[in-house]
Amino acid sequence: MTREGSRRQRRGERGGLKQLPWRNYRNPYRPLEVLNSDQLEAIHEASLRILEEIGMDFLDEESLGVLRQAGAEVEPGSQRVRFDRGLVMASVGKAPAEFTLHARNPAHSLTTGGTHVNFGSVASAPNVSDLDRGRRPGTFADYCDLVRLCQSLNIVQFISGYPVEPADLPPATRHLDAHYAAITLSDKLWHPYSLGRQRIADAIEMICIARGIDRDELKRSPSLFSIVNSSSPLRLDGPMLQGLMEMARAGQAVVMTPFTLSGAMSPATIAGALAQQNAEALAGLAFIQIVAPGAPCMYGGFTSNVDMKTGAPAFGTPEYVRAALAGGQLARRYRIPYRSSNACAANAVDAQAAYESEMSIWGAVMGHANWLLHGAGWMEGGLVASFEKMILDAELLQMMGEFLQPLVVNEDTLALDAIREVGPGGHFFGAAHTLARYESAFYAPILSDWRNFETWREAGALTADRRANALWKQLLAEFEPPAINPTMDEALKSFVERRKREGGAIAA
Amino acid sequence: MTREGSRRQRRGERGGLKQLPWRNYRNPYRPLEVLNSDQLEAIHEASLRILEEIGMDFLDEESLGVLRQAGAEVEPGSQRVRFDRGLVMASVGKAPAEFTLHARNPAHSLTTGGTHVNFGSVASAPNVSDLDRGRRPGTFADYCDLVRLCQSLNIVQFISGYPVEPADLPPATRHLDAHYAAITLSDKLWHPYSLGRQRIADAIEMICIARGIDRDELKRSPSLFSIVNSSSPLRLDGPMLQGLMEMARAGQAVVMTPFTLSGAMSPATIAGALAQQNAEALAGLAFIQIVAPGAPCMYGGFTSNVDMKTGAPAFGTPEYVRAALAGGQLARRYRIPYRSSNACAANAVDAQAAYESEMSIWGAVMGHANWLLHGAGWMEGGLVASFEKMILDAELLQMMGEFLQPLVVNEDTLALDAIREVGPGGHFFGAAHTLARYESAFYAPILSDWRNFETWREAGALTADRRANALWKQLLAEFEPPAINPTMDEALKSFVERRKREGGAIAA
Repeated sequence: MTREGSRRQRRGERGGLKQLPWRNYRNPYRPLEVLNSDQLEAIHEASLRILEEIGMDFLDEESLGVLRQAGAEVEPGSQRVRFDRGLVMASVGKAPAEFTLHARNPAHSLTTGGTHVNFGSVASAPNVSDLDRGRRPGTFADYCDLVRLCQSLNIVQFISGYPVEPADLPPATRHLDAHYAAITLSDKLWHPYSLGRQRIADAIEMICIARGIDRDELKRSPSLFSIVNSSSPLRLDGPMLQGLMEMARAGQAVVMTPFTLSGAMSPATIAGALAQQNAEALAGLAFIQIVAPGAPCMYGGFTSNVDMKTGAPAFGTPEYVRAALAGGQLARRYRIPYRSSNACAANAVDAQAAYESEMSIWGAVMGHANWLLHGAGWMEGGLVASFEKMILDAELLQMMGEFLQPLVVNEDTLALDAIREVGPGGHFFGAAHTLARYESAFYAPILSDWRNFETWREAGALTADRRANALWKQLLAEFEPPAINPTMDEALKSFVERRKREGGAIAA
Repeated sequence: MTREGSRRQRRGERGGLKQLPWRNYRNPYRPLEVLNSDQLEAIHEASLRILEEIGMDFLDEESLGVLRQAGAEVEPGSQRVRFDRGLVMASVGKAPAEFTLHARNPAHSLTTGGTHVNFGSVASAPNVSDLDRGRRPGTFADYCDLVRLCQSLNIVQFISGYPVEPADLPPATRHLDAHYAAITLSDKLWHPYSLGRQRIADAIEMICIARGIDRDELKRSPSLFSIVNSSSPLRLDGPMLQGLMEMARAGQAVVMTPFTLSGAMSPATIAGALAQQNAEALAGLAFIQIVAPGAPCMYGGFTSNVDMKTGAPAFGTPEYVRAALAGGQLARRYRIPYRSSNACAANAVDAQAAYESEMSIWGAVMGHANWLLHGAGWMEGGLVASFEKMILDAELLQMMGEFLQPLVVNEDTLALDAIREVGPGGHFFGAAHTLARYESAFYAPILSDWRNFETWREAGALTADRRANALWKQLLAEFEPPAINPTMDEALKSFVERRKREGGAIAA
């Protein structure tokens, strides 16, 4: 990094973009509750009945053995598992209420649970989009550019997964290149996929090298988190379960997230979808704690609804917001950190993209989500990672981050002397109280354009999507990768080369 | 109205647009509080000190006389009034905590205060804009079209003022034409301006004719509300005060709204801006209650901040949200209904317009605003009423209105039988539980497009602003004015003609 670059970093800036400094966010507000205590208990009770009476399919023989041994009822000749509520609650009770994930750069470590709020990037989109090049399948070059943007934007506190799938890389070794790029282009937390045991094992090796620690130390100070989605309704597939076990045994965090689209993969009522979400989440969380008692984990909520006429998934809807808030209530009931999302179904970076994302973000933050997945760049219900949407979302998240700062009320901020000095009919522009706060009085946006119409029109009448287009290009042009110890870099490279020679995740 | 038209109305539809039915909204959630009780009291205390020590200018001799008589301290030879806190609190204590405003169509009457939530249109923009005709000064034709849209959209529950200023009409008689159009093109609540006594007196006559009642009955069942803005800092001008007195004495509602832009008309700290807002609001509310004890009134909050570099007003910012929430806490402290706004500073119906409006709406609704002014159509910090923005906002308000509906949790919605029927790995599309809810399971948007990218692109790749453009044209094409008794219509016309012959508001 150049001297100018590091000076910028100390000022909380990246390149020429004036943005909020890196901060660890806490939610100072009371969570918004959509369920009264009777309703919360009714959903809890329904989910336990689902696990007792209907059960859940675990499509993995090893997992079935672990569950049988722990006392779950595995239906003979099938993969159906029924859980006694005592087993579920005793297991879930072993999960930590709060834990810290350790980034390569310790300044970028994050704590989840309690009142902590952490914002992550888009993840897992098959396609990528920007206004210049249009919509197209993702490549490793796009992946790297999006990782660079994640690193550049302070409000993107962790990388939620592959921002876009680098589909031009061979599947068996893709994770090696992707993780190497995440480690070297960024110094923030990143996510390996629970697609079989081998990919997780490789990720564990790589983060140990990057942090210069062994597996014991990694277990004590975890770095990795991995999303495990149930194949709703009521099913967990084999590769996910294998990855889950590898993560949990290594003491790394599993985010158990049912994907319960109401009307498709769950009932066409939010209460029913939540009961099913909770059943699947509890089954997954209990399994994690059976595999590795005390392992860090999170409760993921991803209930939304479909358009009943077409079956198209919808996000940021009133139903989505209610489910996000209820999910927080459920997670808090079990004292487990809560993961939510910034989801939208829009096809363009237009008003719809903004309002659906705002609805999702408000639902997440008011629901006291601790871990906001897909926070920046997610579009089309997850089918696209958009460069412009990432900038738009960075603005939305920054505004929310600023809103989470406590309001200061004291003699100085109440400003009676300034009000007295200015007096009725006066103006505060020139007041000493105002001038002393000129630089930092208010939130300074990155994307919003507050110029008057005439000035805005003369400057090209650029809508927010076009302004976002200029901003991500600026960030990429000014990007400087974070420092890395050359010995570690060499060790990482050697590891990647060796594992590629071995064929990568051939047994996935 | 045609038979088809009235059938559509019974179905809660207008024209071909499937929208939410007319509803009276209640806020089922706990208000979000940004101030702890000590901070709330500190702001309250600071505002009382402002009124005691600094005072406020009342630019109207009659008002000064009323205040002097009530025991306020009017500085000799000036218009400066200082208020003893006992006088302020005793007067404000006379305001009703809740009241109903009666529309020409009783089905469109609205109650404010408590947990009631009511959504209004844009008001008072000098310019109008749409994608076809661009941005231009408002005309009476635009005014009428916007009133038609307010009538057509169920979620627009009241007309907040002139949606756009009909600048092509003569100022002295403009209010007569504007009110006649509001009464006949709509049957919802509307707003006369407190610009002198005469305009208010005319509006009172017109609503009495339209409702077929006399002034005594109007006093018992008020219909009108009028915004009174202080000329911040700490000043109330003469025409506003004259209008205020005419409204209060007739038992009509005054919405006392300081316009305290932090950094310009109030201190560059939100705490200071709130202290000043509260001082001005309390002074105005106390004055209303001194003029007419028990008269309906509302506490208006309109604190936002300026861009410190340019002085440009900003809306929907983190500071704006905090101020909206704090304003609600202050209004509830005095048990007075609370007015907030859906404000944005965007120059186009783009992502910025949507996210600034979402921030404003969330701040208002979580702050338990009872009366949302500028709810639909407001742009550019109030300089423009936009046809497309009105459709966009209708979607945002509908989503919020739907979010306010209580979540139903019972055996039927928990859907254990459906989950059992579908089972692990199944699908809910064809389940009986789903089919029984096919029509009404979820919120159906008016503007959101949830089709997949390919279908959306083949249909023209229309962004939300362009889709909104088609929707307002559809609503205008299908518009049918609400029924009106021909005798009343004649009486209204005669009144307008007579008052025009007399010269209108010549003494304003």
